[in-house]
Amino acid sequence: MRLFGSIEAGGTKFICAIGDEDYRVKDQVSIPTTTPEETLGKVVEYFKQHDVEAIGIASFGPIEIRKSSPKYGYITKTPKPGWQDTDVVGVIKEAFNVPISWTTDVNGSAYGEYIMSTLSNEKIESLVYYTVGTGVGGGAVIDGEFLGGMGHTEMGHTYLRRHPDDLEFPGSCPFHGDCLEGLVAGPTFEARLGIKGENVPRTDPVFDVLAYYLAQAVIQVTLITRPEKVVFGGSVVDEDLLVKVRQQFKELFDDYVELPPLEKYITRPLIANNGSATLGNFALALKQLNE
Amino acid sequence: MRLFGSIEAGGTKFICAIGDEDYRVKDQVSIPTTTPEETLGKVVEYFKQHDVEAIGIASFGPIEIRKSSPKYGYITKTPKPGWQDTDVVGVIKEAFNVPISWTTDVNGSAYGEYIMSTLSNEKIESLVYYTVGTGVGGGAVIDGEFLGGMGHTEMGHTYLRRHPDDLEFPGSCPFHGDCLEGLVAGPTFEARLGIKGENVPRTDPVFDVLAYYLAQAVIQVTLITRPEKVVFGGSVVDEDLLVKVRQQFKELFDDYVELPPLEKYITRPLIANNGSATLGNFALALKQLNE
Repeated sequence: MRLFGSIEAGGTKFICAIGDEDYRVKDQVSIPTTTPEETLGKVVEYFKQHDVEAIGIASFGPIEIRKSSPKYGYITKTPKPGWQDTDVVGVIKEAFNVPISWTTDVNGSAYGEYIMSTLSNEKIESLVYYTVGTGVGGGAVIDGEFLGGMGHTEMGHTYLRRHPDDLEFPGSCPFHGDCLEGLVAGPTFEARLGIKGENVPRTDPVFDVLAYYLAQAVIQVTLITRPEKVVFGGSVVDEDLLVKVRQQFKELFDDYVELPPLEKYITRPLIANNGSATLGNFALALKQLNE
Repeated sequence: MRLFGSIEAGGTKFICAIGDEDYRVKDQVSIPTTTPEETLGKVVEYFKQHDVEAIGIASFGPIEIRKSSPKYGYITKTPKPGWQDTDVVGVIKEAFNVPISWTTDVNGSAYGEYIMSTLSNEKIESLVYYTVGTGVGGGAVIDGEFLGGMGHTEMGHTYLRRHPDDLEFPGSCPFHGDCLEGLVAGPTFEARLGIKGENVPRTDPVFDVLAYYLAQAVIQVTLITRPEKVVFGGSVVDEDLLVKVRQQFKELFDDYVELPPLEKYITRPLIANNGSATLGNFALALKQLNE
């Protein structure tokens, strides 16, 4: 049986997994993100127990993805203490002489959803994946390739028209205040209401405010990249919220370009339990092996 | 001498041109946009006098660009009277059995600027081109190809954070009110100030308002597509305005991702006199011929 490795490198944990050719997870482990030495050491130890042909890595960032850069494979100027300038691909490459794919966490998820859509006979060639959790990020696959000119996308930090009932909130992004992340990420619940997101009743009007902003994010990527679907993952988003996002989108967008039915266009991930990036990594590892 | 044709199909005029292999304009004519029969008839008549190997067309829209569609080559649901469902490529193809490229007007300009940047030894692989005139549009070239999943981009209609001194203005877009086009296109001068744009002194504070919005547009395409430069054409934009756009961008963006120096990143077209689309069409015609 051919095996592939997945490393989903997050700010709180590294999820490592082993998958087969059909992208089925055969084994999985979660390693806490402490220091680069300790965490990557445990990652290497884990993969030493398995015989993988290639490894896909989807990482928190910002990361260097330009193959021409001497810093290719690095996490670069992340705010995460101790992780600035960490040569992730270098460490894994030194331990395992196999092909390695390297992209952002949201790109990994985008690719997983793209592959799963294809396997589900949706026959799509493009999608955008947003994660809305502690932070907000977005990645896009267009014609089967990741979008991004001189670097990877950072879709979570664009500005939006403010909701009339939310004009006083300054936003929570340390860089931009009221950018998309500063208006809809998990910590905005406590910043707006004084209570944690998981304790806010789903009937609270704050979800209408969030939907207004997320609908504008969908409009941005719709008009700028024209994807065939926009997928929302992350702890903040559930189907109830997406119902509101679709309503707001319909109102704000005014059917400006032809789109699939909105319940298919603005959706939750096809892959359950935050597994999109793991499947994406398996597929990217295999793609890397075939190149 | 090898010759190529360019058709820049606009809502008020069709600019037809003949170019050589070095993309030099050998001849050019402007045909008023009246009915499809009359205008396309004159276009055909013009090219009958020249022996072109391929023709590039950059058109007002919306247009159908999916090769798999039976409507490929059509202007589709344009508000321009008489031009809905017009088979532009079909008419030209029937008259001249040569390869024909087909894209949007802004994509044609984006491609012209991309080629000229390459010829100028900038060695870039990506850029975004915005036109800000009667309307607002944007096109992108990423890794030498046009951006767009299920259709062409329509970058002029995203929403933006409103400028604190401009909250009363409802915007002039018939579809969206205060989207980018509704806030910065040429007709907004008269809508805001009661005088035509060309009569507004360049010291008027309205240009700070415009710069605030255009800076946000640059932020959107920077984070969503990561281009190597953002070019502004169209009658509303001059270098004075771009100085303001760069200032606003710097303040709003907070150096969030690494970029070229802003005076190189946010720029006017390299090609003078609105010639970007014509050069782009020549290059796209040649590319089509080589495919």
